Amino acid sequence: MATRAFKNIDKVPEPTLRRLPWYLSSAKLMREEGEIYVSSTQISKRINIDASQIAKDLSYVAITGRTRVGYDIDLLIHVLEDFLGFTNLHKAYLFGVGSLGGALLRDSGLLHFGLKIIGAFDINPDIVGTEINGIPIYHSDEFEKRIQEDKVNIGVLTVPITIAQEITDKMVDGGIRAVWNFTPFRIRVPENIVVQNTSLYAHLAVMFNRLNEVVNK
Amino acid sequence: MATRAFKNIDKVPEPTLRRLPWYLSSAKLMREEGEIYVSSTQISKRINIDASQIAKDLSYVAITGRTRVGYDIDLLIHVLEDFLGFTNLHKAYLFGVGSLGGALLRDSGLLHFGLKIIGAFDINPDIVGTEINGIPIYHSDEFEKRIQEDKVNIGVLTVPITIAQEITDKMVDGGIRAVWNFTPFRIRVPENIVVQNTSLYAHLAVMFNRLNEVVNK
Repeated sequence: MATRAFKNIDKVPEPTLRRLPWYLSSAKLMREEGEIYVSSTQISKRINIDASQIAKDLSYVAITGRTRVGYDIDLLIHVLEDFLGFTNLHKAYLFGVGSLGGALLRDSGLLHFGLKIIGAFDINPDIVGTEINGIPIYHSDEFEKRIQEDKVNIGVLTVPITIAQEITDKMVDGGIRAVWNFTPFRIRVPENIVVQNTSLYAHLAVMFNRLNEVVNK
Repeated sequence: MATRAFKNIDKVPEPTLRRLPWYLSSAKLMREEGEIYVSSTQISKRINIDASQIAKDLSYVAITGRTRVGYDIDLLIHVLEDFLGFTNLHKAYLFGVGSLGGALLRDSGLLHFGLKIIGAFDINPDIVGTEINGIPIYHSDEFEKRIQEDKVNIGVLTVPITIAQEITDKMVDGGIRAVWNFTPFRIRVPENIVVQNTSLYAHLAVMFNRLNEVVNK
C-alpha cells in the first residue's frame, strides 16, 4: 500500500504509537527554534518522559542517531510523519452528519495528518445533496455504489448510538477495513477489521471525575 | 461541588471510567427496546466484555441490582449519568479558534454530556468579537479578567503546538483546574492540575498503522 519506514517488523505497541506524535511535535518545535540535531535526552527534558523510553520507541522507526549529537531534526520529522501515516492521504467516508459529524467535516486539520474525508452519508433530507467544507453529503442508500467507485477503506462513525452497530455492519459489508468510532457505543466487528475508539464523552467523564477529586481535596 | 453518587471513596480506575459510558449507552439502547431491567450478563452479551468485569466496574457506582433481575434500567441510566458528570453543566473556555477549535464550538453534543463552553479566546482580529454557535470569541488578553467573573475551571486547548505550553501556563495561572488537551503536544502542568489528552492525530496514527498491518497481511 504505502511505502513506510518500517525498521522493525514486529507489531508496534499502541503506547509507542501514541507517544510518537509527542516526539514529532517536540521535534517540530525545536526545529522552529533553530535546532539542527535533537537527542532523546533533549526531547525527554521537554516532555518529561524517560530518555530510554524515547530511544526505545524510536527504535521502531528506521532512523539512526549520531553519538553525542542525536538525530538530524529534518530527517527525524520526515521519518516520523511517514511512519505515522501522516504523509499519505487516506481516503475516508463519514457516517452521520449530526453535530459532531458536521464539526469533523469542518476540521481541515485532519487533512494535514493524512485523513481526507471525501464524502459523508446521512438520511436527513435537509442536508442530503448539500456539502460541508466542500465534502458532498449523500443519502446512505448510495453508500454501496459509491464505495465501489471511490475505493475508500476508512469509515468515520458519528451516528446516534441506536444505529451505531447497524451502520458499522453495513460499512464492513461494503468493504470498509477500519472504523474510527466517535460514538460512546462499543461496536462489534469481524476480527480483521480495525476499530479506533475516540469517545470524546468518555474522555470528558474521566476529566470530570479527576477534577472533582482535585476540587474536593 | 456536585452531588455525586459515590459509593466507593477509592479513586476510580481510569479503565473503569472509560468503560462506564459503554454500559450507559447499552442501557439507553435497551430501554429504547422496551427493557425495564438489565443485568451485567445482558450488557456483557451485547458489548463483549466479561460480565464479572462489568459487575466490578458498576460496584464503584451507588446502585444495587436485584438477584436474577438485574438493575432497574431507568435508575442505572440516571445513576451512571450522574456519576460520570454528564448531568451537571461544567463551564469551560476554549483556547484557539482554528479549524478544530471552531469545530468543537459547533459541536452542541458536548452540552448533552455536561460540558458548556461559554467563551473562546484567540488573537486573530478577523474573529475576535464574533461568535460561533452563540459562543463569544474574546481576545486572549481578556482571559484574566473574564475568568474572575465567569468562575470557569476547565480549559479546552486547541492552539498550535508552538504556543501550547505558554497558553497552558497562562490558563493555570488564571485559575483553570483541568485542561482538555487536543493538541499533539505533551503539556506540563503542576501536580494538582488535571490533564485529559485527546489527540485525534495520535488516534489516527494508531488506526493507520493497524490498517496497514491488516491490508498487507
